[in-house]
Amino acid sequence: MSAETKSPSEAKSTDRREFLRTSAFTVVAGGVLAACGRGASNSAVVAARPTADSDQSGGAMAAHPAVPSATAAADEMDRMHEAGIKAFPAKTTGLGNQLLAPKIVAGVKVFELTASAISWETTPGVKVAAFAYNEQVPGPQIRVTQGDRVRIILKNNLPESTAIHFHGLELVNAMDGVPFITQPPVKPGQSFTYEFTVPNSGTHMYHSHHNSTKQVGMGLLGAFLVAPKETTEYERADIDHVMVLNDGFHGYTFNGKSFPATQPIVAKLGQKVRIRFMNEGMMIHPMHLHGMHMTVFAKDGWTLPAPWRCDTLNVAPGERYDVIVNCNNPGTWAFHCHILPHAESDHGMLGMVTALIVQA
Amino acid sequence: MSAETKSPSEAKSTDRREFLRTSAFTVVAGGVLAACGRGASNSAVVAARPTADSDQSGGAMAAHPAVPSATAAADEMDRMHEAGIKAFPAKTTGLGNQLLAPKIVAGVKVFELTASAISWETTPGVKVAAFAYNEQVPGPQIRVTQGDRVRIILKNNLPESTAIHFHGLELVNAMDGVPFITQPPVKPGQSFTYEFTVPNSGTHMYHSHHNSTKQVGMGLLGAFLVAPKETTEYERADIDHVMVLNDGFHGYTFNGKSFPATQPIVAKLGQKVRIRFMNEGMMIHPMHLHGMHMTVFAKDGWTLPAPWRCDTLNVAPGERYDVIVNCNNPGTWAFHCHILPHAESDHGMLGMVTALIVQA
Amino acid sequence: MSAETKSPSEAKSTDRREFLRTSAFTVVAGGVLAACGRGASNSAVVAARPTADSDQSGGAMAAHPAVPSATAAADEMDRMHEAGIKAFPAKTTGLGNQLLAPKIVAGVKVFELTASAISWETTPGVKVAAFAYNEQVPGPQIRVTQGDRVRIILKNNLPESTAIHFHGLELVNAMDGVPFITQPPVKPGQSFTYEFTVPNSGTHMYHSHHNSTKQVGMGLLGAFLVAPKETTEYERADIDHVMVLNDGFHGYTFNGKSFPATQPIVAKLGQKVRIRFMNEGMMIHPMHLHGMHMTVFAKDGWTLPAPWRCDTLNVAPGERYDVIVNCNNPGTWAFHCHILPHAESDHGMLGMVTALIVQA
Repeated sequence: MSAETKSPSEAKSTDRREFLRTSAFTVVAGGVLAACGRGASNSAVVAARPTADSDQSGGAMAAHPAVPSATAAADEMDRMHEAGIKAFPAKTTGLGNQLLAPKIVAGVKVFELTASAISWETTPGVKVAAFAYNEQVPGPQIRVTQGDRVRIILKNNLPESTAIHFHGLELVNAMDGVPFITQPPVKPGQSFTYEFTVPNSGTHMYHSHHNSTKQVGMGLLGAFLVAPKETTEYERADIDHVMVLNDGFHGYTFNGKSFPATQPIVAKLGQKVRIRFMNEGMMIHPMHLHGMHMTVFAKDGWTLPAPWRCDTLNVAPGERYDVIVNCNNPGTWAFHCHILPHAESDHGMLGMVTALIVQA
Repeated sequence: MSAETKSPSEAKSTDRREFLRTSAFTVVAGGVLAACGRGASNSAVVAARPTADSDQSGGAMAAHPAVPSATAAADEMDRMHEAGIKAFPAKTTGLGNQLLAPKIVAGVKVFELTASAISWETTPGVKVAAFAYNEQVPGPQIRVTQGDRVRIILKNNLPESTAIHFHGLELVNAMDGVPFITQPPVKPGQSFTYEFTVPNSGTHMYHSHHNSTKQVGMGLLGAFLVAPKETTEYERADIDHVMVLNDGFHGYTFNGKSFPATQPIVAKLGQKVRIRFMNEGMMIHPMHLHGMHMTVFAKDGWTLPAPWRCDTLNVAPGERYDVIVNCNNPGTWAFHCHILPHAESDHGMLGMVTALIVQA
Repeated sequence: MSAETKSPSEAKSTDRREFLRTSAFTVVAGGVLAACGRGASNSAVVAARPTADSDQSGGAMAAHPAVPSATAAADEMDRMHEAGIKAFPAKTTGLGNQLLAPKIVAGVKVFELTASAISWETTPGVKVAAFAYNEQVPGPQIRVTQGDRVRIILKNNLPESTAIHFHGLELVNAMDGVPFITQPPVKPGQSFTYEFTVPNSGTHMYHSHHNSTKQVGMGLLGAFLVAPKETTEYERADIDHVMVLNDGFHGYTFNGKSFPATQPIVAKLGQKVRIRFMNEGMMIHPMHLHGMHMTVFAKDGWTLPAPWRCDTLNVAPGERYDVIVNCNNPGTWAFHCHILPHAESDHGMLGMVTALIVQA
């Protein structure tokens, strides 16, 4: 398949009635919005002063004569949009990108990854065929420190051969995970052990490098995060959030889930949030954060000589970016891919949408 | 719809005979080319010295025996290419991105934006269905200064609900324009008033954040430019040009128009032109300027710590870049997206093509 | 055609049996892998210590009970993958991007470029219709020095008109190569002479600027490299490699060839390799190098004020990037576009894949 293959995401877009459910979101958002009213002086921006007919959102709404039929159609569309947002963050079966604690064996950090075919729920009611490490999409999050001795035991329970490439790590060649170049493929039923001393720090990934269009597209991917021996100023964040961007077979997803099943980032006013973007898909995704800017300080795990600021960060397949957000603006802030069909249809928000919630 | 949706631009590509019309272009270009002949010493480049059979273009053309049938087909293709260029800049009905003067009410800058469904002419004879602010695509250009108190009164005359998000402004949450998160949707026939003190400077945008794939795709977008309280060296340009890139429902456009109806930038030799790129589409557009380079000094309204130079600037959806061009090379310079099918077919140039004309 | 046109690359993907042939690759790779075993202490990374059942690749393989039918299907897939890699670098007819020595006429460097329609082999057995300069895709590589007086004689043997634009060079307008703006089109059978003093240094391109979606897509493109008058530290590389990225009519290619007919870069341990990426296609290509990072020091021929490091470099159409790789990690390293369908299918690697081979 080509990079231009249409994502199944929209085909799966269903009536928002399905998504109606009790959700913590309204409560959280309500709390934040209330906080805005009393807490605007805490932030650099000046509070809005609605001029007339204030409603609960703080804006000024004025009634005009409406066209009845247009209003009915608009109401139906709005109802679906509202249902989607009320459902956020929706519960689904399975959660990917969960921190995997190593076993320590004679000073070596040992991680076991089992690849298998599973069913994966991306958003309520939408189950897709997946290949997964330890039944998670993305696979378990691996965190180690530069200089660590690490052993990764891959067990292949898939119906096809596989191998793991540690994308961004400058390993010895035999551990690079490319079948027929650096190792034989790991056949169905077999295991393979990778072992190395972690050479470089930063935000990296691991994923299949065999029949990879299918295998990575189906979910054989995860975050491989290497702390440096000495932490820099930028590394000291209050929250360290990994955000795996994906498209293709599973639709438009963050960490394996589509809106409204994506997970918000929740921070307190004044906290610093580090976000580690990584794109495991086939398309660019320009990530747009509302309300605050991002300071980009690392590319592919390498510290930038001159960090720069933005609110829309274009992340291409295989790239990783580390950014810091100073959470100085309270509220619930939309955070989404700015290729709009990756984020919204006339049925409401979908796919690559989440929120950064800054609690006052 | 997906980001890979085929643009209607080429489908609309019609015989160039339609575009034949009296145009100022030939005159301007002729003047510039003549100026090149006598003025090359003014520029950093050395004039060409054609070696034989000089024609009016300054190059050296030599005749060879041609294949008659190939020549006839080539002539017909060339005729269409020439007609397109002679038609540039072609007249169309409607002009977007026009500066909107505020009313000043008790020290507040008040802007009124009315959203409605209109017909929009992108290039001569090609009319598309559009949603527009104040019947312009892009909507009116808004210019304010950091610290200004601003009121935006949105009147919704569309058949569906809408809302405005101020993309890049770090506003108080209630003014962020995301229905069901920060405000209710503005129903058909209703109005909504946004009011805020402008928190950060730079090149930003405003656009719908409701049913946005359709609404932004149909034209509900515009430039929101914030001058800093203190102007930097880079801000001091002789010409300040906004360039909204778009694709999708309306084809490939700059400021709502497709070549040959795009508008050239006209500068005098020695002037500095600031170009503010903003991408409101669904695809990247690597913008290529001929003849001179661009110095990129801001991203998403934030000054870069280390400005860099290029001749091809890749702008992703939602991104803004500010660049400076030192107009030190006289002539008419093609300026286009370098995804070639966004700029040319066998019928001639189309879509995302304009020119920077430097008059000696 | 649009930028989203499906590449014919996969349609041409044929049974790997066709590609089985004697190849130097296994020998080279084997030598490198052997070197890894004894030479790991030369590099910054620590050699892997497989824990059990070591096979020749240095990894640890353990047998488990396999599902017979899955194994058979996996074996068949693996066989095709292996055949592709064993065939690399596969021989094909024709080699593009070959250095073109100028004739020196009265101090002027004279290059002759003849455009004609040819058949071009992109990978063994796959022949495509092409337009080419001097029967090469990409056209001959041109290397000059800033300040040189250069004459390019274009002979048009195509069935349609053409012209050459020197993408990135800041030439006098009459030499810019845009028909009907800076010169008349060069008709079939005619010649046109470009002559100029080279104004700026860096990694540039030349290509058709007439009916360019077709003409550049069919192969009328090449590298135009300008050495600065004074060489910087970054310019001093042991190997200077040009890498023209392309997609579209000819499939996914590096320097006009698809894997396994792409050419590896072969360096010795400790050498510095300069890679000049240039994208002549219609899509982005995020280039991922295994095993070592790249230091990006120039964009579009302009030195960056603050070089930065990465392992995945996103190159958009029309862009050029210059990078340096310090070859400190011995082995055969995959080097490919990370839009995975541009690099692999279930039949094995394809298209935009090559290798950087670091010999210990």
